[in-house]
Amino acid sequence: MTVIKISEKPKLKNPIFIEGLPGVGNIGRVAVGYLISELHAKKFATLYSEWFFPFVMLHDKYKIHLLKNEFYYCKAKRPGQRDMIFLIGDCQSLSPQGHYDVIEKILDFLEKVGVKEIITVGGLATGELEASEKLVGSVTDEHIMKKYAKHKIDFNAGEKVGYIVGAAGLLLGLGKERGIDGMCILGQTSGFPIVTDPKAAEAVLNLLVNILALKINMGKLEKKVGEMEDFIKKIEGLQRKAIMELSKTSKAGPTGEELRYIG
Amino acid sequence: MTVIKISEKPKLKNPIFIEGLPGVGNIGRVAVGYLISELHAKKFATLYSEWFFPFVMLHDKYKIHLLKNEFYYCKAKRPGQRDMIFLIGDCQSLSPQGHYDVIEKILDFLEKVGVKEIITVGGLATGELEASEKLVGSVTDEHIMKKYAKHKIDFNAGEKVGYIVGAAGLLLGLGKERGIDGMCILGQTSGFPIVTDPKAAEAVLNLLVNILALKINMGKLEKKVGEMEDFIKKIEGLQRKAIMELSKTSKAGPTGEELRYIG
Amino acid sequence: MTVIKISEKPKLKNPIFIEGLPGVGNIGRVAVGYLISELHAKKFATLYSEWFFPFVMLHDKYKIHLLKNEFYYCKAKRPGQRDMIFLIGDCQSLSPQGHYDVIEKILDFLEKVGVKEIITVGGLATGELEASEKLVGSVTDEHIMKKYAKHKIDFNAGEKVGYIVGAAGLLLGLGKERGIDGMCILGQTSGFPIVTDPKAAEAVLNLLVNILALKINMGKLEKKVGEMEDFIKKIEGLQRKAIMELSKTSKAGPTGEELRYIG
Amino acid sequence: MTVIKISEKPKLKNPIFIEGLPGVGNIGRVAVGYLISELHAKKFATLYSEWFFPFVMLHDKYKIHLLKNEFYYCKAKRPGQRDMIFLIGDCQSLSPQGHYDVIEKILDFLEKVGVKEIITVGGLATGELEASEKLVGSVTDEHIMKKYAKHKIDFNAGEKVGYIVGAAGLLLGLGKERGIDGMCILGQTSGFPIVTDPKAAEAVLNLLVNILALKINMGKLEKKVGEMEDFIKKIEGLQRKAIMELSKTSKAGPTGEELRYIG
Repeated sequence: MTVIKISEKPKLKNPIFIEGLPGVGNIGRVAVGYLISELHAKKFATLYSEWFFPFVMLHDKYKIHLLKNEFYYCKAKRPGQRDMIFLIGDCQSLSPQGHYDVIEKILDFLEKVGVKEIITVGGLATGELEASEKLVGSVTDEHIMKKYAKHKIDFNAGEKVGYIVGAAGLLLGLGKERGIDGMCILGQTSGFPIVTDPKAAEAVLNLLVNILALKINMGKLEKKVGEMEDFIKKIEGLQRKAIMELSKTSKAGPTGEELRYIG
Repeated sequence: MTVIKISEKPKLKNPIFIEGLPGVGNIGRVAVGYLISELHAKKFATLYSEWFFPFVMLHDKYKIHLLKNEFYYCKAKRPGQRDMIFLIGDCQSLSPQGHYDVIEKILDFLEKVGVKEIITVGGLATGELEASEKLVGSVTDEHIMKKYAKHKIDFNAGEKVGYIVGAAGLLLGLGKERGIDGMCILGQTSGFPIVTDPKAAEAVLNLLVNILALKINMGKLEKKVGEMEDFIKKIEGLQRKAIMELSKTSKAGPTGEELRYIG
Repeated sequence: MTVIKISEKPKLKNPIFIEGLPGVGNIGRVAVGYLISELHAKKFATLYSEWFFPFVMLHDKYKIHLLKNEFYYCKAKRPGQRDMIFLIGDCQSLSPQGHYDVIEKILDFLEKVGVKEIITVGGLATGELEASEKLVGSVTDEHIMKKYAKHKIDFNAGEKVGYIVGAAGLLLGLGKERGIDGMCILGQTSGFPIVTDPKAAEAVLNLLVNILALKINMGKLEKKVGEMEDFIKKIEGLQRKAIMELSKTSKAGPTGEELRYIG
Repeated sequence: MTVIKISEKPKLKNPIFIEGLPGVGNIGRVAVGYLISELHAKKFATLYSEWFFPFVMLHDKYKIHLLKNEFYYCKAKRPGQRDMIFLIGDCQSLSPQGHYDVIEKILDFLEKVGVKEIITVGGLATGELEASEKLVGSVTDEHIMKKYAKHKIDFNAGEKVGYIVGAAGLLLGLGKERGIDGMCILGQTSGFPIVTDPKAAEAVLNLLVNILALKINMGKLEKKVGEMEDFIKKIEGLQRKAIMELSKTSKAGPTGEELRYIG
């Protein structure tokens, strides 16, 4: 059960899709979140899934919030721009298998709305205190690299990363099987996955602004990053709290794997 | 395979649904269990699921008891009352993914019998020895908070809890996606999930009695709590025993996750 | 994917079904295995499942053996007897969820061949060195207890066991939901699940012989138990070996649960 | 979701199928990989699956590579030869259950292209420093053993191995249920699963060349083994890296199994 609920059917012309789900350094989440906010992009579809955490969050003191991924669109406003679709969200799949299911559902949806090009954003954990601001890129096919050659992207990801886990990787890998072009932009970050890296996010944001030929007021970035970070920290804190609470419980009840046949 | 077997199709008029499955402090279970008993609510449907523990319990010395959730109904008897549906049960899903499946099946069923409002009951583990008896509330939409404003509910759950795991949360989150209004009432309890908290349950019970405009004899509560606690302790004990027994076995057989390709 | 392949469609008259899959003390496996051998019961269906271990065994030096459960039948030969169906096998489901799936498939099949009564065999691990030979029983309904009142069964399982895991329990619990009568016979054994207990198996065998009004030569039991034990030990040894081999591997590859989103 | 994408539909006459997926010693992978390369076998179908690792690899510096299994064919070129289908790939299923699903999908496909005989290649980890080069064999039926009696295969696998995990075993076990003949060739290797064993691979390669009546230039083997080993080491290294990275994350988020009901 992975469901995409469509609230509006915008007519989009050859839209480009930009993914910004949570991940290493939350780079895509912050960069794409800021784009959505500054462009006043409009939400038109919501995804929720059995592969997400089985809890609801509470926010604004009393409101219940189902874990979701959300699709926004923004039409081209000036020559040189393209219609755009953005994806942000609270989380990715809890389990390995779930990733494939969720991504396939997203790709089914993207094909229906005419997407033929995908840009995903990820983080490259370098393990070093000072991370380079150089952006690293990886593509589904050589011609995409050429298309973006004028942008400052180090197309040498293969030597630095080796692999891209989750949505940022599978959207491209599975998308390619459907004939969708794709590029992953990896911001370099010093590493621990749950720390938001605003500097890396800003570098990615600047690149996206260039690629998409946008004019964006960057002045609110710092403030917005702070807000987003609060929300991200909240989710992450909840997850930590959930584990601790549940690790107590697990002494009182078998986990799935422990329960085997007797009787 | 999550199955709801319907034994009777009562005609209900805009019924309100009250969930009381086991959880932190077993607050909902005790409160809703007592309501069912005092109102002589009638069982009309039974749910069992592949996501529950793969064992049967034995009770009354020799009888086999499949793990179940059970739906009861009670028609409005006086002005000011509404038709009611109650859900109690032995357990919730063993695995994260299972929660979504079970809850969706429950919501499919509730939609069929005309439910447009859900109240779930949970426990808020405070970690303090003396828990406040103040009830905390969370809703799917602001108008529900207003509807229940006259009741003593602290609609500030978001600052205290952060998230609601399992049925109490997902029934509201997934229900909202179907246009069903929902409120979660959280009793405060000092914490360890597997201890039944009769005081918190009584506070929730009193609130439910007020909300539902019921007249209930509270005199048998203590005795009933004792009985229910015996049953709850039994299930919990069995689960503990099962783990210990199985942790021995697991030395003799690989768990699912450990088994990877060789050969 | 749980498949039952039918190799013969015998015409059976109100057959009784006896389950003897591996479990605590392998009591059912040995008792039912001996019955099949002595009655020359005929295999007519084979079950295999994605929920079993993903390996094949090798036997007779060079032959490949897919893990299976097997159905045998034996027609009534004398007045007082009934047509019988037996189930034995190499294993039960690896995962909790799998148990429900496999048992539902078995029950679908049993309903098709007209089974209205099930006897399962389990082991009651007492934890004591010297286990009583008294057989403990549990039923889906009181009338079944009365039916077997003349046999030496202590219908007090509820006080001793609490629960029955896996096939022996779920066949009855899920069977009851389909209107199938059921009894579980539990042999008492001193405990460690992977040790075969021939004494408990013999006690169960004697009871089954009485219930089914059979005449069986018990003289070969000791020898047969030895043979079966060799096979059982082999499977168990393979599983142990598999874990050890795989625990090495697991340092080189993430387990399913550990793999979460990054990138 | 296990998908086989067919890029070409070759007309094959009674093709024999040879499996060489990664496993103990990567023996099949190296032997079959070399055959494909030397025979200039042509890729005609690609399998990917939700049961594989949820990441994409990066190679050639910038290119994205979805984890895959790949089918190649090569037509008989001389008398005595048969049409051949080869399977190699990046990985096998991550989870036990996935193996059954992936193998069933492969067998569905093989039946469609007319395969009636399967040879799988595995590794027998002896645990000794110096492994014998003797090849051990196991078959689905005695007549296959006779068919290959003239080749140097020790059909005594049952005494040495006990079981064959994953594709090499299940292709035969599940294939047999469909009436497909099968043999598994096990190269002996000293053991640690993630080390490629070129000597064992060469022994298997020589046997395959004999069985398939091929003429192959063995001169490039050493070089090719080196290249393949680089790629294999890369995947294995990525998996190791993934775990380490993810084991950090797992402190910040519950694993699937730990998350149970509260609330």
